Amino acid sequence: MRQIEGGITAAKGFEAAGVEAGVKYQNRKDMALIYSEAPCRAAGTFTSNVVKAAPVLWDKKIVEESPFVQAVVVNSGIANACTGKQGMDACAAEADCAAKLLQIPREAVLIGSTGVIGMQMPVDRLCAGIEKLAAEKAGTPEAGLSAAQAIMTTDTVHKQVAVEFTAGGKRAVIGAMCKGSGMIHPNMCTMLGYVTTDVNISKELLQKALRAVVEDSFNMISVDGDTSTNDTLLVLANGLAGNEEIREEGEDYAAFYEALEYVAKFLARKMAGDGEGATCLFETKVVNAATKQDARTLAKSVICSSLCKAAIYGHDCNFGRFLCALGYSGVTFDPDRVDLFFEGNGSRIQVYGDGAPKEYSEEEATKLLSAPEVTVYVDMHSGSETATAWGCDLSYDYVKINADYRS
Amino acid sequence: MRQIEGGITAAKGFEAAGVEAGVKYQNRKDMALIYSEAPCRAAGTFTSNVVKAAPVLWDKKIVEESPFVQAVVVNSGIANACTGKQGMDACAAEADCAAKLLQIPREAVLIGSTGVIGMQMPVDRLCAGIEKLAAEKAGTPEAGLSAAQAIMTTDTVHKQVAVEFTAGGKRAVIGAMCKGSGMIHPNMCTMLGYVTTDVNISKELLQKALRAVVEDSFNMISVDGDTSTNDTLLVLANGLAGNEEIREEGEDYAAFYEALEYVAKFLARKMAGDGEGATCLFETKVVNAATKQDARTLAKSVICSSLCKAAIYGHDCNFGRFLCALGYSGVTFDPDRVDLFFEGNGSRIQVYGDGAPKEYSEEEATKLLSAPEVTVYVDMHSGSETATAWGCDLSYDYVKINADYRS
Repeated sequence: MRQIEGGITAAKGFEAAGVEAGVKYQNRKDMALIYSEAPCRAAGTFTSNVVKAAPVLWDKKIVEESPFVQAVVVNSGIANACTGKQGMDACAAEADCAAKLLQIPREAVLIGSTGVIGMQMPVDRLCAGIEKLAAEKAGTPEAGLSAAQAIMTTDTVHKQVAVEFTAGGKRAVIGAMCKGSGMIHPNMCTMLGYVTTDVNISKELLQKALRAVVEDSFNMISVDGDTSTNDTLLVLANGLAGNEEIREEGEDYAAFYEALEYVAKFLARKMAGDGEGATCLFETKVVNAATKQDARTLAKSVICSSLCKAAIYGHDCNFGRFLCALGYSGVTFDPDRVDLFFEGNGSRIQVYGDGAPKEYSEEEATKLLSAPEVTVYVDMHSGSETATAWGCDLSYDYVKINADYRS
Repeated sequence: MRQIEGGITAAKGFEAAGVEAGVKYQNRKDMALIYSEAPCRAAGTFTSNVVKAAPVLWDKKIVEESPFVQAVVVNSGIANACTGKQGMDACAAEADCAAKLLQIPREAVLIGSTGVIGMQMPVDRLCAGIEKLAAEKAGTPEAGLSAAQAIMTTDTVHKQVAVEFTAGGKRAVIGAMCKGSGMIHPNMCTMLGYVTTDVNISKELLQKALRAVVEDSFNMISVDGDTSTNDTLLVLANGLAGNEEIREEGEDYAAFYEALEYVAKFLARKMAGDGEGATCLFETKVVNAATKQDARTLAKSVICSSLCKAAIYGHDCNFGRFLCALGYSGVTFDPDRVDLFFEGNGSRIQVYGDGAPKEYSEEEATKLLSAPEVTVYVDMHSGSETATAWGCDLSYDYVKINADYRS
């Protein structure tokens, strides 16, 4: 398995486009299309929020019931959430529009939306946008990039990745793009993630791999603890790589899983590092925890703490806050057995151990905490399980962006 | 029951002091003493954090095991948390010092600390501070105020309150002071709360009343979701009001309970409104929920959401974020049955109902959201239970204060 250039159009048979449709934003791309020349098996994971946006309800039904899918239409600017029946009608209108233009069944069209909640969708502008998308779609890297740009909201960089691997002796490719900042704790600007692959795999194994991979990637990041109404992660597999269908968990499944996991972790880290207002990627690695779930809970508690995030932003080695966040995570442990380290810029210092502060140079600590990627390394000394979580620091700009997001 | 002037010294037989001891801060009061001329029954609630500061461990033992208590010594600046055996030794040294000067048993001295975690205590300066406190203690309102000021960290205003009520035909008083911003989700600068009363009540009922009252007051506020290592709420009752001891839940217990609840809610609101960087008090009232716990969970989910808090700061009627926060609270409900209102400056508007946005004036909404106290009113239409939670908005200053708290 190795990373290659490109994104959502890297796998065989996939095309994309990104256009200006004026849904809400002006003078920027705000609609994207992913299209596969061959029918795809689809798998998805969706927000756990009780309040689900219309496109989430739409996609859940399609993924569960449709025999195949062939296109995804996404808009940024308006989330189509808390919009009642009118919101569902908007999804149907979009799907009809795309189905007619792409000459595929309406049940083969997935929908995604991200942006402001509680605002109704301008269906005319969406349909005009879909016309443009259908006319411009292409299988080029440029078209993939254009789609990745069109789904951005407060993102500062587009996010895409592609890898190649071998399945059944054939070269297969996974391409992906995403926007936003989280799955369990995403930013209101929502996590949307789209993965395309030409590998030939059964629907059951596709869904199984996706569910498993999400646990240690998208579900381990957080920007602000708010779980969106719109979070969606979809995988489309069109089988054009030509490998014999993967129907069981052998070598080929392992190769696909490894590639999918790489893509998911790559994008998850990208999202965390591009959290709203972030100046750095803030990673927490917990080792030697009693259980896997303990390790995950502890790591997430630290990266979710406003006080830890603010300390990272201030390059302030206020390590007590990190112990405090471990302590209120809900996991039971003996604080006297914990070793706490900070890592950054290639160096590492221990700040706490044997139940008391360690001697360290504040100057060195500040330098280390000024790195673009800072890791808090926690050794629990109570088992052998490990987990890593990714977040970002809490800056003035986070407040600025969110105090007036709608204007 | 009615509110009266004063604070921690308002009840009969209680004295207090606040002095500059230079524990960490310079040129400001940073040590406080509460002293009762008569032995007191004590009750307490403490942080749920696994990592407990030394004074929390000290106080828990005293409250559980000592036959009576007679003094509380509190410092601000350093939290004496994550300090191991040396931290416990510091508590013992403080208690010895106070016991000798006040001529009371060491086991009658409670300790409180708030400030930076992971720093050892300067025992000499603490003991010098206790000498000053013992010399200056008095039963005046000025002395109570001085104590309330000495326990502040990032608080912008001191917080005290007193009420009088009748028990067994006698006038009884409750006085109280606190600092910080929360009990379940307090700020790292910690919630410390001290309540004194001259009522005569059994230890069992004192603890019972405290536990019950905390649920709907201190446990319903949050500033930043971080549960401190040091949170402590203590009640001292010296019985000098002269009423017959309250031993069962009759009329006198009800009178005491009402007074204690008033004091607790008063201080809880004060703390929320003075959250770090706060520009307003942000209240969420949930009515007609299916269960009491649902009502509490829903109300707290809203006031804890960074995105809701930022919207309040920006006076932005981005109501979708509020529905979103209800949706990920963990409570199951039908979003189509929820009515959502904003209240402020004496007016009220409905922004969501029947599963869709309501028509309202953005101008009116912005004006309403600019009030010093903003209420989000949520009618769940699924039962008859109510709960109110208090928080504050999320401002640039929150980040500023916490990015460099130690310097």
